[in-house]
Amino acid sequence: MLRQASQLLRLETRGKGLYEFTREASRWVAETGMAEGLLTLFCRHSSASLLIQENAAPAVKRDLARFFEDLVPEQAGYEHDDEGPDDMPAHIRTALTGVSLQIPLIGGALMLGTWQGLYLFEHRRAPHRREVALHLIGA
Amino acid sequence: MLRQASQLLRLETRGKGLYEFTREASRWVAETGMAEGLLTLFCRHSSASLLIQENAAPAVKRDLARFFEDLVPEQAGYEHDDEGPDDMPAHIRTALTGVSLQIPLIGGALMLGTWQGLYLFEHRRAPHRREVALHLIGA
Amino acid sequence: MLRQASQLLRLETRGKGLYEFTREASRWVAETGMAEGLLTLFCRHSSASLLIQENAAPAVKRDLARFFEDLVPEQAGYEHDDEGPDDMPAHIRTALTGVSLQIPLIGGALMLGTWQGLYLFEHRRAPHRREVALHLIGA
Repeated sequence: MLRQASQLLRLETRGKGLYEFTREASRWVAETGMAEGLLTLFCRHSSASLLIQENAAPAVKRDLARFFEDLVPEQAGYEHDDEGPDDMPAHIRTALTGVSLQIPLIGGALMLGTWQGLYLFEHRRAPHRREVALHLIGA
Repeated sequence: MLRQASQLLRLETRGKGLYEFTREASRWVAETGMAEGLLTLFCRHSSASLLIQENAAPAVKRDLARFFEDLVPEQAGYEHDDEGPDDMPAHIRTALTGVSLQIPLIGGALMLGTWQGLYLFEHRRAPHRREVALHLIGA
Repeated sequence: MLRQASQLLRLETRGKGLYEFTREASRWVAETGMAEGLLTLFCRHSSASLLIQENAAPAVKRDLARFFEDLVPEQAGYEHDDEGPDDMPAHIRTALTGVSLQIPLIGGALMLGTWQGLYLFEHRRAPHRREVALHLIGA
């Protein structure tokens, strides 16, 4: 019989960067007792996003961060700058990387590949409390 | 007992830009009578995409539009230009922003954050009739 | 009564480019016998991604590939280059395009639009064996 479970995960960020939460998400999935299903992660913000990326080499995280700094610079004459120069770039970086992710759960394991980790991508300079909604449907 | 519902949403666009449809999607979810589940939105086009973005400041929409105009310019020597100079940039912008989105429904509410709205991102100059498939599974 | 099915799809790539697998995914969906539901595709790698794009004009694929070569060049002074100059660009291109996609199944048909095809986007130069997890929940 199929069923569903949901949870709000709270993550504290300390400024721009990638924060891994693979362990927290996996632990919650295990607690539901389901072995087959679909896990959804949803970031409830417009200035932080979700990313599945390589979790082995720390240099990958630095190169990713640098790429997005260059692609969406803080100084670009944005019309919207109510909350400072990192505000509008944060919205654009969120648009480019997305706030919704799904991972199948098969045979008791999330289908993340060997090198894939789950990350919250904080795009603001200041520390923030971020909420990621978790939803699992399956059996 | 879990069940599912689906619907085709038709949106008329008047050229390039972000068209919010949070209200239409929320109304349909309410009509299904479900309180817990997973909402999927799927844009059936390769030159328009879906975006969850800040819904308070109109300047955000203008800055987002300008960023994508600069990142993917119309004049860039594309090989594919059967339908005009805005054709290939539309495909690329769709690839960068995506056509599929999921939002958990928990306790009777879509998990959109306070500042998050649902947008269709039209990438063509001419008005178009766009279709977004809605699917909800839950209880 | 709702149920679910899952499958690992293996795709062989021959270097950088877009590899269509609409037919393989559709065939598997048909084999499950379901007519209404939600199909999830998940790419288990951090240097290959999933894309829904125009499947009619081959020039679109070439323009897309060229755009990403220009946007994320191989020579950009990346710190992470353990596996060669195409390694870090592959991670960035994967971050920009994503590894997770969902398509509603309604009335026996995947809701892909007339011009939409499913693609694996290989970002490495060398041939690779890639795994895409398929998950379908519905009836």
